[in-house]
Amino acid sequence: MADALQDFYAVIPAGGVGSRLWPLSRADAPKFLHDLTGSGHSLLRDTWERLAPLAGEDRIAVVTGRAHRAAVEAQLPGIPDRNVFLESEPRDSAAAIGLAAAILHRREPDVIIGSFAADHVIRGTRVFEFAVRDAVAVAREGYISTIGITPSEPAIGFGYIQRGGELIVDGARDASLVDRFVEKPDLETAKAYVADRSYLWNAGMFISRADVLLAEIEANNPALHAGLMELAEAWDDRDRRGPVVDRVWPTLPKIAIDYVVAEPAAEKGKLAVVPGHFDWDDVGDFASLAKLNSGGRKNDLAILGENARILSDAASGIVVSHTTRVISLIGVKDIVVVDTPDALLVTTSENAQRVKGVVDALKLTGRGDVL
Amino acid sequence: MADALQDFYAVIPAGGVGSRLWPLSRADAPKFLHDLTGSGHSLLRDTWERLAPLAGEDRIAVVTGRAHRAAVEAQLPGIPDRNVFLESEPRDSAAAIGLAAAILHRREPDVIIGSFAADHVIRGTRVFEFAVRDAVAVAREGYISTIGITPSEPAIGFGYIQRGGELIVDGARDASLVDRFVEKPDLETAKAYVADRSYLWNAGMFISRADVLLAEIEANNPALHAGLMELAEAWDDRDRRGPVVDRVWPTLPKIAIDYVVAEPAAEKGKLAVVPGHFDWDDVGDFASLAKLNSGGRKNDLAILGENARILSDAASGIVVSHTTRVISLIGVKDIVVVDTPDALLVTTSENAQRVKGVVDALKLTGRGDVL
Repeated sequence: MADALQDFYAVIPAGGVGSRLWPLSRADAPKFLHDLTGSGHSLLRDTWERLAPLAGEDRIAVVTGRAHRAAVEAQLPGIPDRNVFLESEPRDSAAAIGLAAAILHRREPDVIIGSFAADHVIRGTRVFEFAVRDAVAVAREGYISTIGITPSEPAIGFGYIQRGGELIVDGARDASLVDRFVEKPDLETAKAYVADRSYLWNAGMFISRADVLLAEIEANNPALHAGLMELAEAWDDRDRRGPVVDRVWPTLPKIAIDYVVAEPAAEKGKLAVVPGHFDWDDVGDFASLAKLNSGGRKNDLAILGENARILSDAASGIVVSHTTRVISLIGVKDIVVVDTPDALLVTTSENAQRVKGVVDALKLTGRGDVL
Repeated sequence: MADALQDFYAVIPAGGVGSRLWPLSRADAPKFLHDLTGSGHSLLRDTWERLAPLAGEDRIAVVTGRAHRAAVEAQLPGIPDRNVFLESEPRDSAAAIGLAAAILHRREPDVIIGSFAADHVIRGTRVFEFAVRDAVAVAREGYISTIGITPSEPAIGFGYIQRGGELIVDGARDASLVDRFVEKPDLETAKAYVADRSYLWNAGMFISRADVLLAEIEANNPALHAGLMELAEAWDDRDRRGPVVDRVWPTLPKIAIDYVVAEPAAEKGKLAVVPGHFDWDDVGDFASLAKLNSGGRKNDLAILGENARILSDAASGIVVSHTTRVISLIGVKDIVVVDTPDALLVTTSENAQRVKGVVDALKLTGRGDVL
């Protein structure tokens, strides 16, 4: 593999609890801090290691909540202090990625940034690297580029990106303009998308020159842009940063980057897509986690947890063990069991999306101590 | 209700872990020490209270393992020391009930004893009392009597007793000789039994003059009888009891009272049965426990556990909570969840009988710490 890209900075937004993975994911132990693949490392650490060959270890920034600072630094020992951007509260992805773009643009006006969620799973690191290099080449030409995953099945849990006209860019083997973004489809539509071959999964990866990204934010949400500029201007001044964050950050519009950047840019013909021929999953719920860890074998019981003591008889699905208890499963199919010291979840793959409802109910009934 | 019966002594054999109720039942917390009905009392205590009006509080003996002495005394505060018969190891029901018969016969030659398992559930105490009084009246005539439960359904988990010729006995409204005992039938046979109306469930209750019971043991198993006599002769001598128990008890044949007393007596026309028109269950597994606690409503989730913190969404079955953890069940039907500090069981009613296999597997794989 080639050397790191000299003009590239990787940004990892590490936010989002992952409510559908409760009681594994918690406010104080969000999804990105967990090892969900049995790799021995957290998803955040896996993400960082995937990006290091592309950006260089010193050019990976993490945007996260103040509350997670210690945990993030424990996962990424040696991360330069200047690469940890702390939010005082969650303000969604446009603010998080925009903040990184604004700070890095002040430090390095021509920088190209690529943002990659801290809690996704990718298999096929080499293929991923090639896709990012292609996307960076496209971004150098002034496009905002994204990596669209070639679908392995008609998934209904992801949004799709429709490829448009081919883009010929030096250093990129395969790139297109984006025709449009589509929200999560129903199964029939998803099947048609997969058959069509021009649709790719939207994995939320954006690669762009920082100045291009900021211009797009300015065009579509001037208030957000102004706030980000004010934050960036004060950021590297130790005395001024804190007060400005406290004052400005909570006022920023809460909006996803898709609406502020990706969709408007697509309409203007400024959004490019590079296909990613690697395995990708956002591990959105326990059904997805079960599939990921069973290698797709329907009758297997996937086990997550370093010290798991499991006894199973004719059981399939997934068991996550975060205690030292003996867990015995008998004759339960497609089961989901998540065992933590203060909360236990028992459901099935089919009901995995309903976990968020439990989290909401726990909040409403005053049992937030286990969230 | 009438006064206590003057010539009657109740005996409660309190043995048997209840392996099919693991991890609720354990070697050090056997089934009879648990509250399985939400009554607020252990099954042992419920049994004792059911018998007190019949025998009087001072005339109820408990036969149990040495290891359970403290727990039994905690459940039955004020039980006279002379009414606790301690086994040095389990030797099955013939030895346990035979020991009580031998000791009580020495103390009171004409005594009638009735033995009632410590871990069964009965609803309809008044009807139960009438049945026992009938059975005692029959026993006074020299019969060994049992109470057969009128079946509420074609159960395949219980043995059956076939009624024979009617017995006319003063003080007993309804009694018959026993034609035969039959083992657990298949469903077709069970249906035929219930339709026939001459078949009753064998609840393992035996009421008899102590001397008649001992004579039956002597006739059918002289070795057991000899051992029991030796034990009884030394029992009420504090200095001699311990050494004799240590020497003799472990040598007693391990055999169920059904084979040593009930079946041979039935063949000789010496076994009588009184029908019991009350709800009875031996709570043999979690399916039975679920049914017992849901009032038979198929779509209900039964909850056992004083401090249970349960959140359920479209779940049915039973959850037993012996921790303070929040337990969330989503979309699981006929589920069985048993949550204890060191072991968790997840299965379904359909698989309830397989729990014993897990216990065996835990023994074999060196995880006996949770048994």
